[in-house]
Amino acid sequence: MGDANKIPVGIVGASGYGGVQLVRLLLDHPLLELVYLGGESTAGKAIGEIYPHLGHRVSLKVESVDLEVIGDRCQVVFLSLPNGLAYKMAPRLLEKGCKVLDLSADFRFSNLETYTSWYGVDRQDGAIASTAVYGLPELYRDRIVDAQLIGCPGCYPTASLLGIAPLLKQGLILSETAIIDAKSGTSGGGRQPPKTGMLLAEADNSFGAYGIGGRHRHTPEIEEICSDLAGHEVLMQFTPHLVPMVRGILATIYATMRDPGLVRDDLLTIYQAFYRNAPWVQVLPSGIYPQTKWACHTNLCYIGVEIDPRTGRVIVISAIDNLMKGQAGQAVQCLNIMMGWDETLGLPQLSFYP
Amino acid sequence: MGDANKIPVGIVGASGYGGVQLVRLLLDHPLLELVYLGGESTAGKAIGEIYPHLGHRVSLKVESVDLEVIGDRCQVVFLSLPNGLAYKMAPRLLEKGCKVLDLSADFRFSNLETYTSWYGVDRQDGAIASTAVYGLPELYRDRIVDAQLIGCPGCYPTASLLGIAPLLKQGLILSETAIIDAKSGTSGGGRQPPKTGMLLAEADNSFGAYGIGGRHRHTPEIEEICSDLAGHEVLMQFTPHLVPMVRGILATIYATMRDPGLVRDDLLTIYQAFYRNAPWVQVLPSGIYPQTKWACHTNLCYIGVEIDPRTGRVIVISAIDNLMKGQAGQAVQCLNIMMGWDETLGLPQLSFYP
Amino acid sequence: MGDANKIPVGIVGASGYGGVQLVRLLLDHPLLELVYLGGESTAGKAIGEIYPHLGHRVSLKVESVDLEVIGDRCQVVFLSLPNGLAYKMAPRLLEKGCKVLDLSADFRFSNLETYTSWYGVDRQDGAIASTAVYGLPELYRDRIVDAQLIGCPGCYPTASLLGIAPLLKQGLILSETAIIDAKSGTSGGGRQPPKTGMLLAEADNSFGAYGIGGRHRHTPEIEEICSDLAGHEVLMQFTPHLVPMVRGILATIYATMRDPGLVRDDLLTIYQAFYRNAPWVQVLPSGIYPQTKWACHTNLCYIGVEIDPRTGRVIVISAIDNLMKGQAGQAVQCLNIMMGWDETLGLPQLSFYP
Amino acid sequence: MGDANKIPVGIVGASGYGGVQLVRLLLDHPLLELVYLGGESTAGKAIGEIYPHLGHRVSLKVESVDLEVIGDRCQVVFLSLPNGLAYKMAPRLLEKGCKVLDLSADFRFSNLETYTSWYGVDRQDGAIASTAVYGLPELYRDRIVDAQLIGCPGCYPTASLLGIAPLLKQGLILSETAIIDAKSGTSGGGRQPPKTGMLLAEADNSFGAYGIGGRHRHTPEIEEICSDLAGHEVLMQFTPHLVPMVRGILATIYATMRDPGLVRDDLLTIYQAFYRNAPWVQVLPSGIYPQTKWACHTNLCYIGVEIDPRTGRVIVISAIDNLMKGQAGQAVQCLNIMMGWDETLGLPQLSFYP
Repeated sequence: MGDANKIPVGIVGASGYGGVQLVRLLLDHPLLELVYLGGESTAGKAIGEIYPHLGHRVSLKVESVDLEVIGDRCQVVFLSLPNGLAYKMAPRLLEKGCKVLDLSADFRFSNLETYTSWYGVDRQDGAIASTAVYGLPELYRDRIVDAQLIGCPGCYPTASLLGIAPLLKQGLILSETAIIDAKSGTSGGGRQPPKTGMLLAEADNSFGAYGIGGRHRHTPEIEEICSDLAGHEVLMQFTPHLVPMVRGILATIYATMRDPGLVRDDLLTIYQAFYRNAPWVQVLPSGIYPQTKWACHTNLCYIGVEIDPRTGRVIVISAIDNLMKGQAGQAVQCLNIMMGWDETLGLPQLSFYP
Repeated sequence: MGDANKIPVGIVGASGYGGVQLVRLLLDHPLLELVYLGGESTAGKAIGEIYPHLGHRVSLKVESVDLEVIGDRCQVVFLSLPNGLAYKMAPRLLEKGCKVLDLSADFRFSNLETYTSWYGVDRQDGAIASTAVYGLPELYRDRIVDAQLIGCPGCYPTASLLGIAPLLKQGLILSETAIIDAKSGTSGGGRQPPKTGMLLAEADNSFGAYGIGGRHRHTPEIEEICSDLAGHEVLMQFTPHLVPMVRGILATIYATMRDPGLVRDDLLTIYQAFYRNAPWVQVLPSGIYPQTKWACHTNLCYIGVEIDPRTGRVIVISAIDNLMKGQAGQAVQCLNIMMGWDETLGLPQLSFYP
Repeated sequence: MGDANKIPVGIVGASGYGGVQLVRLLLDHPLLELVYLGGESTAGKAIGEIYPHLGHRVSLKVESVDLEVIGDRCQVVFLSLPNGLAYKMAPRLLEKGCKVLDLSADFRFSNLETYTSWYGVDRQDGAIASTAVYGLPELYRDRIVDAQLIGCPGCYPTASLLGIAPLLKQGLILSETAIIDAKSGTSGGGRQPPKTGMLLAEADNSFGAYGIGGRHRHTPEIEEICSDLAGHEVLMQFTPHLVPMVRGILATIYATMRDPGLVRDDLLTIYQAFYRNAPWVQVLPSGIYPQTKWACHTNLCYIGVEIDPRTGRVIVISAIDNLMKGQAGQAVQCLNIMMGWDETLGLPQLSFYP
Repeated sequence: MGDANKIPVGIVGASGYGGVQLVRLLLDHPLLELVYLGGESTAGKAIGEIYPHLGHRVSLKVESVDLEVIGDRCQVVFLSLPNGLAYKMAPRLLEKGCKVLDLSADFRFSNLETYTSWYGVDRQDGAIASTAVYGLPELYRDRIVDAQLIGCPGCYPTASLLGIAPLLKQGLILSETAIIDAKSGTSGGGRQPPKTGMLLAEADNSFGAYGIGGRHRHTPEIEEICSDLAGHEVLMQFTPHLVPMVRGILATIYATMRDPGLVRDDLLTIYQAFYRNAPWVQVLPSGIYPQTKWACHTNLCYIGVEIDPRTGRVIVISAIDNLMKGQAGQAVQCLNIMMGWDETLGLPQLSFYP
């Protein structure tokens, strides 16, 4: 504490997986300084009591959440809490001049009715919510630059939208044929409270689907952005699956092409152009398709593109680390942009394979 | 050896994963007796030298492959070899009066040109190959009863076809909209020679697709049977993925319904009727979707059915153990039928969860 | 229900991992019939609601625990509950003529003070507790034959004691030099309530020790039996570790030999003689050491024996499935003995490798 | 290439797991520049063809190994090859003025007869081999400073020696009672050629020991250094085990204390003093014991210390990442010291949990 050149940052909800990623990332960030950790269930504990491997590097204690204190000490606040809490905290923090980046679903929806119908929480904060920007920099960089309040995307939507965006934006597919078959590691299920289905004894050596038939909460989030990209309402067939691994999301995206004459290299050219200025998206060479491990512990999204000329479909494979590009890393990327810094600042760039 | 009431059975290719499943299954089968193990690379070794956990139960040695010897000693022969070998062995074994069940791709195709174009092997054995029956009992039980030569299905086709068959057979879907997104454990990659990509260090905690865009060899196999079921040529979008687990396949199947007015319970009724006489297929109750672990070490296929009324699609989830219902277990099931026995005889019926 | 030739059996605590193993085992047992499932948190649910993969085979509902009802309907009762409950239930069940097999720690200790000091529960049931027999058949078969109440061993003690028993019983080692370094899969941590440290996201791809320095509750249990075997008090250095896998325990046992002139084959001869009449213990051939996977889903214990002539130590490796030979399987083995049946009856004999 | 302030570095054996770690580490090192990759089996390929996730960051091709070329282009050479190759290459590279860090066993032994008897390779290079320094900086920092040739320690020896060194150096234990029970992830088995036992299908969900009874090659390596630390010859009981995970080694070390009156805090004080100037060793607080995951992808070694007052033993738990502190990271740490830099330079300091 006390480095005058660094921006003081706080994290509310420091003990969950999103929180501990943020702690870890901020320790390496050259222009940010972690000065505050907040939480209720762990208040009073040093972070090293919760995560002993961090004990020799972080001496901060988790404090009971007090918005006045946070606002006084922090210029930037990450909210890493269960859904339905951030929308009550953000207004006061914004008033106190903080930039706020929320990792929950609270500020992801331009239409609060959608939020209410999926998350079961009534909202009266329309005015402030409407100032929130959806924190997917590859699509909304221009708006993030000027934002004070960011609704960071869900993990599945990040992988899905980065994979499908060029197709929708360029009108290359029949949007009603699009299907996203997505697969996630179990860290997406969170840490507290522990869920029976996420026990190693249950989830290991097994694979299954859930939220089938459009019943997963990330469906409306994906649809909102897809509709924005396509310029018309898009319904999306989205099916999440649980993979017996810790981190990583892979989205396999299918859609029928408008022009069946396109070949793989045409699409690669389009994707490379679309992501030319996106340092965190790597479009892979022809014939190469990503594995989630490649993105592990990095803020990268790897994308592979294929065509099946027999069926006229494009198949896109998109891979991220759900806790990094899918959550905490992307939040820091957004903050870099909000601060006018290089968006790669302080973020891990390559995995340690294997 | 020497139980006069048991049918003598041999396995060629005993040391691979298919072979060792067969060894294990035959030890429990009340009417079969394992009398011969053949293999080239392991010839001369006792099975207990290759798989020490079996040493106290099986004293057979692997013998160098000699078709005359096999034909003299066995009434039934399982061929569990790499593709392109069985079609050279089966004719002589059939001549000697053996029933032959082949676990490779050699006898799966009614059109040998398809086989040749995908497997790169020229075939001159059309007459005998044409007597082979595709060993998926739930679809071809009547033909299996009378067969002497069975081409056992691939693991992906088994999961895929059991999932999609009622839809195609009843004409419930627009077949050109069907997509099969399939996921398999790594035991499907075999044991010898070991593959770098299947090392635990590589495959664990990672997830990826392969054979994208109709490039996997199970695509033509699925299409042949789907076309037979539909009564017209069907192209299938099939994408396999590798899951960091040992066993299991899950197929997520999407298709647009011809009649968008169907509801979930309609489809469940149709599926239950279709599989009424299929003891190895379990259609799950409304709202329940299978995990691969449920089928592990059993010959069961669990199926869950869902509808997305917004998109008009049916989504079917099908789960099997790739080495059991997807390979060795199904072969024994076929043999049970060929012998006129109950098709559940000697096969494991329930997994040990978790 | 209603098979007059089968013994009616009940399980109290049916929804945990021990309970579901018992359910599974009883379905295959030729002389037992499952007629009752009891539990508090899941009372009123069918077993298929808790474990959907069993729904097509078991229609029993979990009932609220009523000892009179249990005693009226069951001749045998398995208690599969958290520590500190069984000792309150067993007396009434015994009075009603039931044979009782308890999977908790309640009846493992001949000295109730040891139980109280480690489990924090005061006990007034000394008279009945003293009739309990420690359910490790390879050591106490003679007493199990006549028992009405069995205290089934812990999972670590089973693997540890089977590995070290011949050494202590024959006085081959300096008992004060013995060290048991044991490793277990995470299913040993149970299902309800789920523990954070047992989440796949936490436990996968990690390995650690716990209960170091004699602080694990299985230490006094191991010491009690070791002292009985040795004929004098034995302290044991026991260290448990958590392995990122579902099932299995491996115990690596070190001890200095009294006679440094013994060679490996001497010890193998001694072990084979010791376990000559133990169908569930397999002493492996010279130079072969077990992996936990070999024992998976079976009631087997595989043992490998080695000597280091340089250091004068014997090293024994013992492997079991913690939920089978380490828990439910062993309980059924005990019951087989109590009933005068073959002790292998109805128990799975070989794993499905890999 | 071409940064005048950076030291040009080469890697021979770039495609294995050690090699790819070095590539990854050098990309982040502020004072080193990777200018050369050598290998035989992959010569001619770009690193991005072998490891596609690196393709966008590294454009170097693997070159056929030519010592003259390497010596001309590199000031520092890492040799990451199978045992028995480096000792032929190092002399010429040293002559050409390179600093050489060898990751194989070739330069780990001060007594070449030990090497020959364990590795089966006759050696005539005694003069040069005798200049090699064992690259464990926490023990031999002073000698590493001046070395031109480093024999980097094995992964098991690193974890074992860091755990036991304070005990031996201070004479706190009866060295003949020491036992090291070590456990490793499967990446220690290497990438090429792939080994059957390291397949995910084989190794996952299983746990076993190997090299039991002093038969593992790391035994003499550990004994050489232990003897040096103790000042007299030490025999060590060392047992390696394979854990179903990718990375990580945990060593559980047992020994009887000379002074049974020592308590845990005494030992912690001794350990903290011993490692006061060792930035890569973290002695954990009282009552905390490490998991391998804490060290994953870092160069850290976490150590926990416990005492069992009943048995008079100390138990030390030591955890590292086998490919980082156990291999490539430690090599870079050595190089930092050889160059007179801070030994933490360019090395990853904290894992991304979970």
